[in-house]
Amino acid sequence: MEIKVLHQVMEWNQDVSERVKQTLAEHRVCLINMMGSPGAGKTSLIAALIERLRGEFAIGVIEGDITGQIDAEKIAALDIPAVQLNTDGACHIEAMSIEKLLPYFDLDKLDVLFVENIGNLVCPAEFAIGENFRITILSIPEGDDKVAKYPLMFTETSCLALNKCDMLPYFDFDVERVRGDYRGVNPGGPLFGVSAKTGEGMEKLAEWIAGEIRAALA
Amino acid sequence: MEIKVLHQVMEWNQDVSERVKQTLAEHRVCLINMMGSPGAGKTSLIAALIERLRGEFAIGVIEGDITGQIDAEKIAALDIPAVQLNTDGACHIEAMSIEKLLPYFDLDKLDVLFVENIGNLVCPAEFAIGENFRITILSIPEGDDKVAKYPLMFTETSCLALNKCDMLPYFDFDVERVRGDYRGVNPGGPLFGVSAKTGEGMEKLAEWIAGEIRAALA
Repeated sequence: MEIKVLHQVMEWNQDVSERVKQTLAEHRVCLINMMGSPGAGKTSLIAALIERLRGEFAIGVIEGDITGQIDAEKIAALDIPAVQLNTDGACHIEAMSIEKLLPYFDLDKLDVLFVENIGNLVCPAEFAIGENFRITILSIPEGDDKVAKYPLMFTETSCLALNKCDMLPYFDFDVERVRGDYRGVNPGGPLFGVSAKTGEGMEKLAEWIAGEIRAALA
Repeated sequence: MEIKVLHQVMEWNQDVSERVKQTLAEHRVCLINMMGSPGAGKTSLIAALIERLRGEFAIGVIEGDITGQIDAEKIAALDIPAVQLNTDGACHIEAMSIEKLLPYFDLDKLDVLFVENIGNLVCPAEFAIGENFRITILSIPEGDDKVAKYPLMFTETSCLALNKCDMLPYFDFDVERVRGDYRGVNPGGPLFGVSAKTGEGMEKLAEWIAGEIRAALA
């Protein structure tokens, strides 16, 4: 019975996701779903990407959190339209929440909408939210066994950003192990080693994302 | 409707949790539910605790993971009975899974059963699994805003272990912020700064746990 209900929720979520995608396409807005563990550095990475992409694109951000508005405040401080979505306990964002938040943005003045999902390496991967593409963020301190242990998050993504690469000297982290596991579940998926903090690798990641945005808006 | 079903699942989980607790009490086994983000260092911490507690207690471990048996292999290498529970995609362990796994242990020869929950700072906090007490593990690289952003995990725990304290020099992490936020949601809950890797602070944490186990088995 539990499984049956899960299917119903997911089918309904899929319908709403398609509707969100359609609405955004009409306004020529590209939605990017940013996912990763708590503390992987999602907000910092979005801030570092904004810095590199705002010259070409008008950007908005939806910050998903269980509670509070810490992250939306960080983004708003960059003078970027930001809305905080509180899931009040829920471990992932559903498409219906995004649909309800779209009216808070002037979509005709936006090219890109980043959505920072709840910090969680499991559930968000199962729920489409109207995104054009997904970026999964894994940080060095989390360990190199995470692709093997949480495969869906790395299968159902368009790109893997390996964040906090400046911490590689301090952790036993085998990048080649991650690369191999990632290739196993997501052949052809690009992997970028970056540090949102030092800026290392950020240009290449931003370039790749810009290319995807251009393709989505073409 | 979704919320109603959620209640049904949770009430059923609560019943099974009570049954698991009863069964373990009859065999004088103390169950400890270990929770935290992916990469917080749960397995390493359990291994470091085993080293310090195995002189007094007979220990078994259930390793919860979405898939694979990486963690159970690490524990079995310590010559400790270990069972790997694969949730096949589910983001938390439910009491029914623990009930099904109990026959794999000789409970009369066990004093303590550690359960390493799925790496997730959200959902596991909502599901009792027959535990006597809980330990939440937060690691320094995850950042000092996690208690504010994921409060339930820190409210519904008996103890907070701040792991990877050897990394404090390399991260902007305000321990006092965490201590204050934790006190706010969990007044009186103990907090231990530790490093499973270097052993720093481990004796104090192990002592506290030993006291809780003795009380549970008295």
